Amino acid sequence: MLGQMQDWPLTVDKILDHAKEWHGGREVVSRSVEGPIVRTTYGEIHERAKRLSNALKGLGVQKGDRVATLAWNTGRHIEAWYGIMGIGAVCHTLNPRLFADQLCYIVNHAEDKVLFTDLTFVPILKQHREKLPSVKHWVIMTDREGMKGVDFEGALCFEDLVEQNSADVTWGGFDEQTPSGLCYTSGTTGNPKGVLYTHRSNFLHTLVTLGSDVMGLSARDVVLPVVPMFHANAWGIAFSAPAVGSKLVMPGAKLDGASIHELLESEGVTFSAAVPTVWQMLLAHLRETNGKLTTLKRVVIGGSAVPEAIVRGFRDEFGVDVTHAWGMTEMSPLGTLSNPNAAIAALSDEEQLKFKLKQGRAPVGVEMKLVNDAGERLPHDGTTFGRLLVKGPFIVGKYFKGDGGEILDEEGFFDTGDVATIDQHGYMQITDRAKDVIKSGGEWISTIEIENLAVGHEKAALCAVIGAAHPKWDERPVLLVKLKEGVEATKEEFLNFLEGKIAKWWTPDDVVFVDDIPLGATGKIDKKLIRDRMKDYVLPTAKEKVSA
Amino acid sequence: MLGQMQDWPLTVDKILDHAKEWHGGREVVSRSVEGPIVRTTYGEIHERAKRLSNALKGLGVQKGDRVATLAWNTGRHIEAWYGIMGIGAVCHTLNPRLFADQLCYIVNHAEDKVLFTDLTFVPILKQHREKLPSVKHWVIMTDREGMKGVDFEGALCFEDLVEQNSADVTWGGFDEQTPSGLCYTSGTTGNPKGVLYTHRSNFLHTLVTLGSDVMGLSARDVVLPVVPMFHANAWGIAFSAPAVGSKLVMPGAKLDGASIHELLESEGVTFSAAVPTVWQMLLAHLRETNGKLTTLKRVVIGGSAVPEAIVRGFRDEFGVDVTHAWGMTEMSPLGTLSNPNAAIAALSDEEQLKFKLKQGRAPVGVEMKLVNDAGERLPHDGTTFGRLLVKGPFIVGKYFKGDGGEILDEEGFFDTGDVATIDQHGYMQITDRAKDVIKSGGEWISTIEIENLAVGHEKAALCAVIGAAHPKWDERPVLLVKLKEGVEATKEEFLNFLEGKIAKWWTPDDVVFVDDIPLGATGKIDKKLIRDRMKDYVLPTAKEKVSA
Repeated sequence: MLGQMQDWPLTVDKILDHAKEWHGGREVVSRSVEGPIVRTTYGEIHERAKRLSNALKGLGVQKGDRVATLAWNTGRHIEAWYGIMGIGAVCHTLNPRLFADQLCYIVNHAEDKVLFTDLTFVPILKQHREKLPSVKHWVIMTDREGMKGVDFEGALCFEDLVEQNSADVTWGGFDEQTPSGLCYTSGTTGNPKGVLYTHRSNFLHTLVTLGSDVMGLSARDVVLPVVPMFHANAWGIAFSAPAVGSKLVMPGAKLDGASIHELLESEGVTFSAAVPTVWQMLLAHLRETNGKLTTLKRVVIGGSAVPEAIVRGFRDEFGVDVTHAWGMTEMSPLGTLSNPNAAIAALSDEEQLKFKLKQGRAPVGVEMKLVNDAGERLPHDGTTFGRLLVKGPFIVGKYFKGDGGEILDEEGFFDTGDVATIDQHGYMQITDRAKDVIKSGGEWISTIEIENLAVGHEKAALCAVIGAAHPKWDERPVLLVKLKEGVEATKEEFLNFLEGKIAKWWTPDDVVFVDDIPLGATGKIDKKLIRDRMKDYVLPTAKEKVSA
Repeated sequence: MLGQMQDWPLTVDKILDHAKEWHGGREVVSRSVEGPIVRTTYGEIHERAKRLSNALKGLGVQKGDRVATLAWNTGRHIEAWYGIMGIGAVCHTLNPRLFADQLCYIVNHAEDKVLFTDLTFVPILKQHREKLPSVKHWVIMTDREGMKGVDFEGALCFEDLVEQNSADVTWGGFDEQTPSGLCYTSGTTGNPKGVLYTHRSNFLHTLVTLGSDVMGLSARDVVLPVVPMFHANAWGIAFSAPAVGSKLVMPGAKLDGASIHELLESEGVTFSAAVPTVWQMLLAHLRETNGKLTTLKRVVIGGSAVPEAIVRGFRDEFGVDVTHAWGMTEMSPLGTLSNPNAAIAALSDEEQLKFKLKQGRAPVGVEMKLVNDAGERLPHDGTTFGRLLVKGPFIVGKYFKGDGGEILDEEGFFDTGDVATIDQHGYMQITDRAKDVIKSGGEWISTIEIENLAVGHEKAALCAVIGAAHPKWDERPVLLVKLKEGVEATKEEFLNFLEGKIAKWWTPDDVVFVDDIPLGATGKIDKKLIRDRMKDYVLPTAKEKVSA
């Protein structure tokens, strides 16, 4: 016996329908790629997205076809999204920060038929178009005036498509398991792999993130998503803002402190989301210019661990509350947020800080477990750390085209590749990447924890910890230190500095001073490259052992 | 092509699993039916609900079987809910306020196999048990001490079932369209009809109501649902509170002002939900005793229209924000809430009041339309009123066993039976019941609007408006007035009082003074009975017409 509540498939076109019907006059403001501020509304975006749907159908796009976007956060990008998804095609967001050959691999792997691009990326696409045979049509996201400077054979003008097509098209009406979006992981090992979102997964992610204890957007919010639509779905804001009628402020291509500050103030932004570097730039700009934040109330920070100084800066200098968030492309992307539970909320601001720096709590719809190498569950005591696995209706089940094979454990959990602790309040904290963690005598040592402590030494500019082979313990930690300019130090100074701050057996077996600690494309320490550079290194403790 | 995000059916057992895992120590406090305050936690409730599942299996309950509860809001009632739903059986909530023969009809129609009851209802069940042949087992929701006073052959003791069974049982694992709950409408015409909720509809209702612009519960909230689990699912709070880890305070059988006030203060309640009469009793109690509300921040009021005096009382005397809500059994039950959008929030408190008294805005997942008798859509201008129809994933598609036949229009909308306006901000306001609205010359007249104005006359105790047959206009309004004790008045006094307040053609054709205006079981004016009593009444204007 099945129930007989209404059959109402969870398809994302209904989100923009809702915005048009109930928040049709609510503004969407963009800093256009061409320069000027452009103002539109959910009502107009709905109309224009429908026209784009007809344009795509005219270009031969069918249900299931992939249509790529290589674009900044703007109103036009939202129109493209809903125009694509509404007719059951798949919106494949491309990350312009990837290397050109990675981009080409991804477009070819996805077999994208149409590619929407901002003016910014026309030159690079022109250079590589011959390597992208699946793309039949190129749409430049500009108007006829903007097209004048475009030197790209056969390119279509976005505004022409909008103008020349009718809005008379039916959206939705298909299974909620129909794919809606495609995003490739950055792929630090091997080729990038695609996560194929569904209408259902996007819709459920939207509902969950609207919860008071998650992102909690409301019709009264003015939301500026700095976090890009091209990576991790702008943390779902392109869905959640129209779902409640928040005003949207889209920053386009300018993410520097001054540009963001200008939009925050001129548009009355109450809520924003970005990675730590963006907030660091903003804070620096505000301090330099003696700037104020007169309307901003909440910022969500994710993408990498939040430095304490950012939380304090926002709180103490600007009265803005910081919520730490964690997620990944494979999770649509949100997994946890550090919104306080009742016990934490009862603490002083200073005591709460420790929890604000953790990655946070999981909402209903995100299951988490910590396991050891044998797959056994570990306790939630805030100190035991293990691999972090996740399960839920907006978490990847298989990668696109089956890449990587079976990726779930026998309980249906996906391995995040992170190593974490979970405390008694349910706050998760990432302690390391699984591939970086040091396994010493069967126990695990967090490289990140030692790095974060060591970099607090006044002479350190940057620190990294890696594991080095040891005949007895398998691996032992080595601390690499890049000193501040013109400074000298001894190994003992650093080892003494760490003493008492970490367990004795976590103490690095060696300290190596280096001229350079390499950073990857996202600003994180590139451990893979460091390990390559150190491949001939032998621990002094290993040598002693051998010579003993 | 379907996507490959994880297969994670939306079944409500996952909500209590989540509460146990991440909010296991959070309290659920009940005023027990036996008297004392009983404290438990989500962790304990999870364990005990699982034991009940095994007890039910032992009693022969299988997937799809209906298990009834006739019970107040308590922790035990929650245990019964999840114990029943977790194994795919259907929790059929019975409303003790129904007449005995309605209750018997419902139990027989549902073919309930097991019936859980509070001590309160044992006498009435004993009287009627012979008429309920489908019920094989009767479970009294008490402990062995409480059973001593129970004179009911073969009755099982709730605490015995918990004690004697193991918690080792698998929950869920079935299709999310599996029925989870059953609730009958009050059935003002014909027999009550059953709404068969599904795991999916309950889960989606939970996610939607957790949104900041809907109920917006958080882990920091302490929630007292006065609104009963036995009717309209306690507005979903038995799902939404555990879904976020709100502390739950369950009022049991005592809903008077003093008892509610005591719980609000002793347990630090921040959020509560009830019908207007409960709040009226609370306000009266607070004024009498000079009581304070030191922790309560928000109350949601629904079930019938909220009098302005309640909103003002809470706001001005106690600093508590009132949110008006509207819904119905067929909607799981929430449809709209009067949380402000940006434009309304920018108004003064006094200007906002007008919108607070409307039934409110629809969240994503609730579609609404206003139509005329021909089914054509009407404008959202705040004055045009029409039949209110709704559509969404937690709205009824068919009644249980197909009662009432096809109930959706060709666009898939369900007719609420209400007549309403929707303004430019999307605020819906109920103006009448469709069966009460007066159709005069093809236009509609709201009886409720005239009643609300007329009752403002200083001599009126109660007013009702009904339509009376008219040879030219089909129907014309008649105002019935019950005067305050010892007062006299003329028809003209009332007609003059209304002049200028309503359109001229809405002016009643007659005023009839009556000794009694009958109220139904829920405190609303019983128009059906009034129309019966007035069936021989002839309008003076109709007579004139005839004699002319």
